[in-house]
Amino acid sequence: MSGRKRKSLTKPHGASPWLYGHHAVAAALANPARVCRRLLVTKAARDRLANAASALAERSEPRLEVVERAMIEARLPPGAVHQGVAIEVAPLVPPSLDEACAPTHGGDGDRDIVVVLDQVTDPRNVGAALRAAAAFGTRTVILPARHAPPESGALAKAASGALDLVALTRVVNLARALGDLKDMGYWCVGLDAEAEATPEAIPASVPLALVLGAEGAGLRRLTRERCDLLVRLPMTGAVASLNVAAATAVALYAVTARASD
Amino acid sequence: MSGRKRKSLTKPHGASPWLYGHHAVAAALANPARVCRRLLVTKAARDRLANAASALAERSEPRLEVVERAMIEARLPPGAVHQGVAIEVAPLVPPSLDEACAPTHGGDGDRDIVVVLDQVTDPRNVGAALRAAAAFGTRTVILPARHAPPESGALAKAASGALDLVALTRVVNLARALGDLKDMGYWCVGLDAEAEATPEAIPASVPLALVLGAEGAGLRRLTRERCDLLVRLPMTGAVASLNVAAATAVALYAVTARASD
Repeated sequence: MSGRKRKSLTKPHGASPWLYGHHAVAAALANPARVCRRLLVTKAARDRLANAASALAERSEPRLEVVERAMIEARLPPGAVHQGVAIEVAPLVPPSLDEACAPTHGGDGDRDIVVVLDQVTDPRNVGAALRAAAAFGTRTVILPARHAPPESGALAKAASGALDLVALTRVVNLARALGDLKDMGYWCVGLDAEAEATPEAIPASVPLALVLGAEGAGLRRLTRERCDLLVRLPMTGAVASLNVAAATAVALYAVTARASD
Repeated sequence: MSGRKRKSLTKPHGASPWLYGHHAVAAALANPARVCRRLLVTKAARDRLANAASALAERSEPRLEVVERAMIEARLPPGAVHQGVAIEVAPLVPPSLDEACAPTHGGDGDRDIVVVLDQVTDPRNVGAALRAAAAFGTRTVILPARHAPPESGALAKAASGALDLVALTRVVNLARALGDLKDMGYWCVGLDAEAEATPEAIPASVPLALVLGAEGAGLRRLTRERCDLLVRLPMTGAVASLNVAAATAVALYAVTARASD
């Protein structure tokens, strides 16, 4: 157990980010594991934040500061769609691979599914993949410690609250993590546009790790070799290419919708 | 016919945008219907653009200008991921609803499918929905003339080339356009998280218009009432919410994957 723990990063990753937008901020406040430092809200946005009032009341901090928009915008990247609300937080402590993935052997409809993103560097793509993961009941999204974005406002905005619902697990070595997942009983299924098989080839009830690579580059050789199965998403168009977050959503749908057949 | 044409906007919509990024620029150059005005490329990006050389050779304009990154960045919004290439284009002439949608009654695997986006205002979401539409062989994406984004660099970047592959049709009145689609033989199927039915309830071979609303607000009352059927995408997670582009991809997969069963 302790040997395994060393293989994943369980220290917070990156600096204290400012998260923004209603869904992201409300989810951060509602997450007991989330340290929240400062909460800036415009007068106009304060009423809408009332939904998060009970979560806020249960915290000793942050104090809510009603400010002008310019005060918020000074802390965010240009063009950030903040909806009048921003929160400074500490990054979450990533779980170990064991904590995040040890199979629960849940009953019907409670299949253990995790998503593995190989070399996905755009924070918006990671955020949108997290959102899809939350929509389909995925336990965690696994990223390599290197070449993966830290928690950020852009990531949290694209996740629309899912950053505080689905854990991001960060592992030192992705190929080794796939080996560990297999030891836990997971089937590792890689998405590959050139594969022969389709999601129908995936066994129906085993714990499942869906592995997606960066757009263009796809899965790295070592990642691909560790997969038990490679599948393509059947597409009928001239351009067989989805954004990685859309591909994550489609793959999770393909796997979970069939379970309810 | 001429009466119908008046119901859609068939003049270019918006000013001349700068498109950027390799996929978007190569697709614009390869589209004979696309007027291209200026093409700016960094020295480093020029080699990679060689893929588009034959498309460029067949055009009288634009002339390729090799420039410094700063020259490109001066024309784009801050933070645009331009990959060293940008092109000034004229917006495409949108097709009429008839031109874009008149059923082809194609054979197996060639079902007529169109996507309708109701009140989706974020250009990145429209672009990503276009990309999903291209991946699944959709004929067009239909937007209302008002409250929908014009062609832009951000839209084209998210579409990753699909803006020059799948037509954007712009209609004056979306509810009336749904009526016109029904007259042409389309089934109008709205996505609604509260619906009872799932995509399995959609007839297998009729021409299909998939109607998606803005996140949060969903479909407007009049749009919803014009639909023949409302379906939800079955999701197993705590948060039943996908970004509209991811929902488009999943819905198109659900409809087209079943056709190949």
